Amino acid sequence: RINGDRLWDSLMEMAKIGPGVAGGNNRQTLTDEDAEGRALFQKWCEEAGCTMGLDQMGNMFAMRPGTDPDALPVYVGSHLDTQPTGGKYDGVLGVLGALEIIRTLNDLGIKTKHPIVATNWTNEEGTRFAPAMLASGVFAGMHTQDWAYDREDAEGKKFGDELQRIGWRGDEEVGGRKMHAFFELHIEQGPILEAEGKDIGVVTHGQGLSWTQVTVTGKDAHTGSTPMPMRKNAGLAMARILEKVDEIAWSHAPHAVGAAGHIDVYPNSRNVIPGKVVFTVDFRSPELDVIKDMENRLRVAAEDIVDEMGLQVAFEKVGGFDPVKFDETCVAAVRNAAERLGYSHTNIISGAGHDACWINRVAPTAMVMCPCVDGLSHNEAEEISKEWATAGADVLFHAVVETAEI
Amino acid sequence: RINGDRLWDSLMEMAKIGPGVAGGNNRQTLTDEDAEGRALFQKWCEEAGCTMGLDQMGNMFAMRPGTDPDALPVYVGSHLDTQPTGGKYDGVLGVLGALEIIRTLNDLGIKTKHPIVATNWTNEEGTRFAPAMLASGVFAGMHTQDWAYDREDAEGKKFGDELQRIGWRGDEEVGGRKMHAFFELHIEQGPILEAEGKDIGVVTHGQGLSWTQVTVTGKDAHTGSTPMPMRKNAGLAMARILEKVDEIAWSHAPHAVGAAGHIDVYPNSRNVIPGKVVFTVDFRSPELDVIKDMENRLRVAAEDIVDEMGLQVAFEKVGGFDPVKFDETCVAAVRNAAERLGYSHTNIISGAGHDACWINRVAPTAMVMCPCVDGLSHNEAEEISKEWATAGADVLFHAVVETAEI
Ligand SMILES: NC(=O)NCCC(=O)O
Ligand SMILES: NC(=O)NCCC(=O)O
Repeated sequence: RINGDRLWDSLMEMAKIGPGVAGGNNRQTLTDEDAEGRALFQKWCEEAGCTMGLDQMGNMFAMRPGTDPDALPVYVGSHLDTQPTGGKYDGVLGVLGALEIIRTLNDLGIKTKHPIVATNWTNEEGTRFAPAMLASGVFAGMHTQDWAYDREDAEGKKFGDELQRIGWRGDEEVGGRKMHAFFELHIEQGPILEAEGKDIGVVTHGQGLSWTQVTVTGKDAHTGSTPMPMRKNAGLAMARILEKVDEIAWSHAPHAVGAAGHIDVYPNSRNVIPGKVVFTVDFRSPELDVIKDMENRLRVAAEDIVDEMGLQVAFEKVGGFDPVKFDETCVAAVRNAAERLGYSHTNIISGAGHDACWINRVAPTAMVMCPCVDGLSHNEAEEISKEWATAGADVLFHAVVETAEI
Repeated sequence: RINGDRLWDSLMEMAKIGPGVAGGNNRQTLTDEDAEGRALFQKWCEEAGCTMGLDQMGNMFAMRPGTDPDALPVYVGSHLDTQPTGGKYDGVLGVLGALEIIRTLNDLGIKTKHPIVATNWTNEEGTRFAPAMLASGVFAGMHTQDWAYDREDAEGKKFGDELQRIGWRGDEEVGGRKMHAFFELHIEQGPILEAEGKDIGVVTHGQGLSWTQVTVTGKDAHTGSTPMPMRKNAGLAMARILEKVDEIAWSHAPHAVGAAGHIDVYPNSRNVIPGKVVFTVDFRSPELDVIKDMENRLRVAAEDIVDEMGLQVAFEKVGGFDPVKFDETCVAAVRNAAERLGYSHTNIISGAGHDACWINRVAPTAMVMCPCVDGLSHNEAEEISKEWATAGADVLFHAVVETAEI
């Protein structure tokens, strides 16, 4: 069994870096706080006897050697970056859970055949630089590194420049590492495990995602002296499109969700009718057909709305991945571990995207989920219990050690 | 007659300060660019023999002496600040038109009984610091200076601090000046004069305005893993309220307008259901009853919408003024001037708020309007012809000189 107190203390220690305004964290990717969190993780890994690898996307790989020089490593990890108003566990639990496995193996003096590599993937959240899971996506060959380097934040700063600036751009080629398997522990970020009273979610599938950035163009004009019939109000068109997004997602519920989390209005002045609005629609479903249907209906609905109002609309797909089916052997290792340890468990589909969804394309992969209070995540009030964290890390430990072979 | 070429050259010279991105201007109040524009205006006024007064709100008063030491001055002016994506004429025409009057009187060697004071009012636009017409409002006793100093921009910077920082906080008490009359030349910012082919709008009334800042509170949550029925999507509630704003304004059209120009979504992350949205609804009408009706219906509609969704809403009135009736003598002076000079003219109600609307409460006031292309304003593409500017300044000149008495 892992040391739940030590894991919890490390979680609390990491949460001191980039504190939020309401008890959570704001440690967005490639900020100074991200750099600080990485340095702490590296220090801990080195104290646990690992050597740190760093690739050109800033992905961190802390290796505990195995006994067989020919055996590929088992990778375990998640991400240390957070949402702007994020919680203390989303991603962090998976990275520090990986570290806890290594610490526990050290405590018990256990050697594994396969090396074990605790991993921190860069920019999982995708808030500052879309898309989400950017660096694991490059690792898995889904994006080119040049394209990733060119991603810009809201201030026009580029991913590549910011990675360089914070000093966490490594020399290692991205994606060169071959994996025996990859495991990721993550909080559920949804309400199912808590509602069903289960300790562990055995993640069999992941929902697919589609992010469509919608740009509606109208005409900036004075809110006071422009008669109603002459207005080309991009904000009003957005309002009508948002209502459709909701309607489209509901039409497929419970097999789909949809919303817009990002909305920028230009010039955003109280007495200027918005001439431009840019917003991102996030549609998800475990079924690819449903995602395609929602994407298409969004475009048709938005075009109808702007046509009727005499405005323009443009669409850009800024993120997306197909629904994922995880590796059966790895999934079974997770289920067996939960069973063996006596934790209650259920199969679950991940509602969120995870680095594991990309890595699943290049290595046998599975995920362990633990509950979170009220299913709440991407909120500073995100909360889990020490018992839940301990159970998740215990299952991760056993699944990884079984796969890495003693 | 004034010198239209000189007026136009000055407009183009001022437009070089704080250029926009699309041919207009971004010279928002209390920015470094505002300071630069003020310095240029002061230099021109001093070259025209005026002495500059500066009050504690940064209002600028360039005085050309009169012949009667007991005669109160006639004030003429508008504002030099612009929208973030503003035009070259909104406000600026009225300030440089006032300067042109003084230059023309100098050319012609005409002395007036009443002094003439070319005026630049601080923060007319209200974009950076709400409400609009802030400094003329303090001058007219509508707001206290302390309250005005405490207004904050989106970054939390205070009006008073920024005024100090740019070096344009004067010593003079605000509102101490007594006026014989006040005249303001402004572009129409609407389509009526151009559509009717009139050179001059004789402004008899001004629309009233109500700015309600609406804060909808839901719950930040993950866009992927939060089931549709568990969402408290503040962005969706905003969308529904915006549709109502439009419906309410249309129900009173053509005697009302309504829209939201300012919308901020929190935390504004693609994969976070908005937990909070703050937006400002701008309603206007020449009839006070209509404004009250729209305000009330907005509150009722918004409360119904959030109740049904299980969210919260709060309202704050962040700006407002009642419909205005300008001084009959001053209005007649404008009409007579247009008539005498042979310019076509029509009575008009100002759709926008102006410093003149506040000054009307403490001094006999009137406005002259000239057309603008397509009625477009609060847009960098705002355009007027040199002929329109010349006609407006000519009428202003004659109305002012008649009032200031030769
Ligand atoms: N786990 C998580 O929140 N990942 C970010 C990508 C997503 O929005 O699903
Ligand atoms: N003239 C003008 O645009 N003033 C700003 C106040 C308003 O929105 O009417």
